[in-house]
Amino acid sequence: MTVSGYQAHDRLTDAEVFATHEGGQLSVSGTIPIHDMHSLSVAYTPGVARVSRAIADTPSLAADYTWANRLVAVVTNGTAVLGLGNVGPVAALPVMEGKSALFKHLAGLNAIPVVLDAPKIDDIVDVLIRLRPSFGAVCLEDVAAPDCFELEKRLKEVLDCPVMHDDQHGTAVAVLAGLHGACRVLDRRVELNRVVVLGAGAAGIATAQLLLAAGVHDITVLDSQGTLFTGRSGLTPTKAALAARTNPRDLQGGLVEALSNADVLIGLSSSTVPEALISTMAPQAIVFALSNPVPEILPHLAAHHAAVVGTGGSDSPNQIINTLASPGIFRGVLDAGARFVTTEMKLAAAQAIAEVSEGTLSVDRIVPDTLDPRVAPAVAEAVIRAARASY
Amino acid sequence: MTVSGYQAHDRLTDAEVFATHEGGQLSVSGTIPIHDMHSLSVAYTPGVARVSRAIADTPSLAADYTWANRLVAVVTNGTAVLGLGNVGPVAALPVMEGKSALFKHLAGLNAIPVVLDAPKIDDIVDVLIRLRPSFGAVCLEDVAAPDCFELEKRLKEVLDCPVMHDDQHGTAVAVLAGLHGACRVLDRRVELNRVVVLGAGAAGIATAQLLLAAGVHDITVLDSQGTLFTGRSGLTPTKAALAARTNPRDLQGGLVEALSNADVLIGLSSSTVPEALISTMAPQAIVFALSNPVPEILPHLAAHHAAVVGTGGSDSPNQIINTLASPGIFRGVLDAGARFVTTEMKLAAAQAIAEVSEGTLSVDRIVPDTLDPRVAPAVAEAVIRAARASY
Repeated sequence: MTVSGYQAHDRLTDAEVFATHEGGQLSVSGTIPIHDMHSLSVAYTPGVARVSRAIADTPSLAADYTWANRLVAVVTNGTAVLGLGNVGPVAALPVMEGKSALFKHLAGLNAIPVVLDAPKIDDIVDVLIRLRPSFGAVCLEDVAAPDCFELEKRLKEVLDCPVMHDDQHGTAVAVLAGLHGACRVLDRRVELNRVVVLGAGAAGIATAQLLLAAGVHDITVLDSQGTLFTGRSGLTPTKAALAARTNPRDLQGGLVEALSNADVLIGLSSSTVPEALISTMAPQAIVFALSNPVPEILPHLAAHHAAVVGTGGSDSPNQIINTLASPGIFRGVLDAGARFVTTEMKLAAAQAIAEVSEGTLSVDRIVPDTLDPRVAPAVAEAVIRAARASY
Repeated sequence: MTVSGYQAHDRLTDAEVFATHEGGQLSVSGTIPIHDMHSLSVAYTPGVARVSRAIADTPSLAADYTWANRLVAVVTNGTAVLGLGNVGPVAALPVMEGKSALFKHLAGLNAIPVVLDAPKIDDIVDVLIRLRPSFGAVCLEDVAAPDCFELEKRLKEVLDCPVMHDDQHGTAVAVLAGLHGACRVLDRRVELNRVVVLGAGAAGIATAQLLLAAGVHDITVLDSQGTLFTGRSGLTPTKAALAARTNPRDLQGGLVEALSNADVLIGLSSSTVPEALISTMAPQAIVFALSNPVPEILPHLAAHHAAVVGTGGSDSPNQIINTLASPGIFRGVLDAGARFVTTEMKLAAAQAIAEVSEGTLSVDRIVPDTLDPRVAPAVAEAVIRAARASY
């Protein structure tokens, strides 16, 4: 780990942060230059009436002559914002603004925050059905588990457009990409790692599912009560289903048992892991401490024992963050005109992220920089290929 | 009327209109330059978490550190789009995009289209209550009468932010501004005009109400069944209330009776007025044929008999359009931190629009150009003064 990686964090003062966020961080503007009455008559009345009438006659023309078809609604009710918890829709807004800004910056997509005063998912579903003509895709953010699973499932059923919960699938893709990169650096096969996923919320469960789809055999998932194993009492349906497909050595107990001789720790938990436990992992261990803003273990402590360390913040090397994945995934699925984000697309996206950094891989560079402009186009391209392959 | 005013209309080809509207006409972008990991850590994680946490602790900080507090939601269900009728939310989108673009262009405000698949106003109310944390003001557009009156009333009750139905009040302010301008050119007093308002939809009713507030004594309003008079059977509550306050000479019948010797015709109807009827108006008549995209009477025909002619399109002189009013009104009410758009604000806004063109008034320039950059700031300033005066 480089020392320079921490300097940014040290320099981040409240004064700078709050001054920068004053007035929010998004701007909407028109793309048609309006400089005289003629251009106004094209952009607005009477010209715009011709566009409206054409769409009224042929609704499919809306895809070509409005912005909505490619607009990403960044939707939350604020029940699980970063690692802050249930802070509500208003306090979630800065995060949604930042995500919206990154969609444009990284993938050239328009995105707007839709923060909803709707603790119950029934209400979120109802609102988005009504709002449907206003957008072209839904990026769910920061909705608490287990509601987020049911919410995503229902939205995929009722909305005829791509819907993806970023905290689940964007994170899972980024983690798999990081695992690809780390394994190439360490010269071993992804599938053969013994993996511990700490956290059985949105990100933990989706990550375990994607690792299974990628062929990883030995995955143990832990929630706040310890390892998920078949027969553990009080499991939610989602956790019970995951327990049935993971934990092949039928581990019980907690992190002590799970981490012993594990090759990979993926922290997605908002909890803390003592350095002593990291030291019990297998040699050449991989530690992704992704809780945000406070990682499960500080990266320089993990580095005492692990060969590769990744975190979720912008202030350390190896930032493993859904932002590597979701802008390109949405760009690809919209470009492909696909309705669903499929498992094949997610596997292809993770591969594409890893391939971007192929020539420059090192223990401190297992994934490309979050701002690497090559990532989102490569992910989009991979998603489009996966969409075509599924026809 | 100048011939040049019609050239723009003649030049407006479908090819130009549709090429210009391809992909829609709005763009969202971030205002924080993201060029390295440090700026990313300020704009996004971990910096953004400090802003979210601060707002969670002190919700009022959202006004300063998010964009929502000054974001105008341009809301419609598409039941009365321009003069096209009930074309629905998808076909309404180009108009809402154009309006959103003009909010930024004219008043520096961010605005986004919120087009709702919600024919019933109960559903619009429910959606906007849930969406409330996402915006700072509601500009209702193109909702059919009489639903629009009830909808605006209920939204003003349940949303703690400014709500204004542009087709009602933006249009009414623009018409009053036009009447101020025309009366100055013709050297007569606004209050003493005998005014006929053709159309008792959203715009017609609100215009009649604002003219009453401005002191005009003799107003006759007509719907598709003829003049509104007290005792006419089948009047909606809104029309009955208006009948009681207008039509002092208790006219019955239709446009023939109403226009005879009238000083002013304000067309807000989507219907047609024959030239022969215009010829029965009083000398030095004022005709505003504002239906859009097709005016009640073509301006060059009206000009055979009227001293001053205005229309709603960008392709003729004297464009009397809510866009003169609403961007500045929303800017003013948001700058003032006021919750309601009051009658005093609307009267002040109309006066302010008229004053902008004071030095250059002529029969072909009774209002400033829609794109005159002085208008919205002058309107905003007048609204702020009116807000302060009401404390």
